[in-house]
Amino acid sequence: MKIGFLGLGVMGAPMARHLLAAGHEVAVWNRTHARAQAFVDAHGGRLATSPADAARGADVVAACVGADADVLAVTVGDASNGGGAFSGMRAGALFIDHTTASAEVARHLDEQAAARGLLWLDAPVSGGQAGAESGSLSVMCGGSEGAFAAAGPVLAAYGKTIGHIGPAGAGQLAKMVNQVAIAGVVQGLAEALAFGRAAGLDMEKVLGVIGGGAAASWQMHNRAPTMLAGKFDFGFAVDWMRKDLGLVLAEAARLGVELPVTELVDGYYAEVQAMGGGRDDTSSLIRRFPAG
Amino acid sequence: MKIGFLGLGVMGAPMARHLLAAGHEVAVWNRTHARAQAFVDAHGGRLATSPADAARGADVVAACVGADADVLAVTVGDASNGGGAFSGMRAGALFIDHTTASAEVARHLDEQAAARGLLWLDAPVSGGQAGAESGSLSVMCGGSEGAFAAAGPVLAAYGKTIGHIGPAGAGQLAKMVNQVAIAGVVQGLAEALAFGRAAGLDMEKVLGVIGGGAAASWQMHNRAPTMLAGKFDFGFAVDWMRKDLGLVLAEAARLGVELPVTELVDGYYAEVQAMGGGRDDTSSLIRRFPAG
Repeated sequence: MKIGFLGLGVMGAPMARHLLAAGHEVAVWNRTHARAQAFVDAHGGRLATSPADAARGADVVAACVGADADVLAVTVGDASNGGGAFSGMRAGALFIDHTTASAEVARHLDEQAAARGLLWLDAPVSGGQAGAESGSLSVMCGGSEGAFAAAGPVLAAYGKTIGHIGPAGAGQLAKMVNQVAIAGVVQGLAEALAFGRAAGLDMEKVLGVIGGGAAASWQMHNRAPTMLAGKFDFGFAVDWMRKDLGLVLAEAARLGVELPVTELVDGYYAEVQAMGGGRDDTSSLIRRFPAG
Repeated sequence: MKIGFLGLGVMGAPMARHLLAAGHEVAVWNRTHARAQAFVDAHGGRLATSPADAARGADVVAACVGADADVLAVTVGDASNGGGAFSGMRAGALFIDHTTASAEVARHLDEQAAARGLLWLDAPVSGGQAGAESGSLSVMCGGSEGAFAAAGPVLAAYGKTIGHIGPAGAGQLAKMVNQVAIAGVVQGLAEALAFGRAAGLDMEKVLGVIGGGAAASWQMHNRAPTMLAGKFDFGFAVDWMRKDLGLVLAEAARLGVELPVTELVDGYYAEVQAMGGGRDDTSSLIRRFPAG
């Protein structure tokens, strides 16, 4: 399959590598040109000069960029990047957006795509850099049945759990559900660990007993040990979590839903950023809750 | 082994049954005498007239009662129940308290027990009524090595994951760590489900994708489906959770630990109680967060 891939960051680069490894013909583009050049030198693929150039002749164009503005720039384009992908795509081709962005932008671009005879899928991922490297991402998809079906061979290269949630925007909303649940789990875990440490407990022993019960979580199994060790130089960065929680809170305000703890946790992450921890893993929330 | 068992509520009754099934000689006592009579009629064992009577000749006395005051009543005793168990126990015998109570009372009773030549173990459990029925409770133990070793044959009858956390009180503190973690998980899940429903998502599909990733938890796997179905007539009651969170918050104040979300969730559970939902499962927290 001919694929254009836009955005070669810590998530996008391993995703594009998996596409090459699966035998696809991949053209890559990155806003910082040098990074795309280095990718092609190391892994192969065609070096594209713009999103529109990466899209030329492609069956599918996939993107994993920063935020709403970046998604708009690489699709409908702006003057700075030599044309958005939509302008270079053939009728019937599919655009997959792996960026975590707003549902509004997803719906807007779905309409723009339809007007040009293109298919659209918003498909944010979870699983972090480790999931991208190992090709075991969870992918939450919003778009038509046709778009979801067409995306199959691409998503199979780096996704493990792939779900079609609903129409355009539904993928983004599902990702928001995921981030809200994580915010609560990590906050509860941070408070639990802070309490246990202040009480002088051997937390390894405590986790050994409670880790099999009703308090158990992916975060407890995978992050409690690193939180206790004060290791945060990996995983999903606080800066990105704040971007995502910003999307959640804006959408919640639109929907009239009260998310008190999500809002609180967003504020604590702002404090972690102020401590200089924006690039640390989200589990560094515990820095905001030292023991005693 | 000769065992006295005090408190035949929804947790204590199945625990005492497991002791009988394991071949132990069990004397049972319950504050409401009729309940103990019914237990003996149905399952056997000796009907004791007081905690002290249940303790007579026993190697181990175990209790699963309501709260601090009840623990004090069945151990050191008060006028109303014909004498606490401590007065009936032989030197060297062990008292195991399965009640979720304060660490302070556990430390106090450990001292009282030591002064009488008795062994003490605070051993609160998690796993709920289902865990008690199936004999798969998690047990968090605080006390001496000798007390923990002596408790082995008893705990094996209904416990699956059994850990010796530290000295007297450490079992209670570990249980508090468990409840704090649960409070965060359930709150995050309630907000996530409320958000997803308000956004019009098919939550079954969403959970199918996110349930294998970083947002996953025991609560998500076991309670999200029942929360979405509005089923709360099972599990661990809000009234009990509030009792436990009260213990946590008092201990946190003593330790000088900030637990903002635990405090917030305690307040939401108070609102659920005010709605008349005190006997419902803790997952009924979602009633406080209706969609939109």
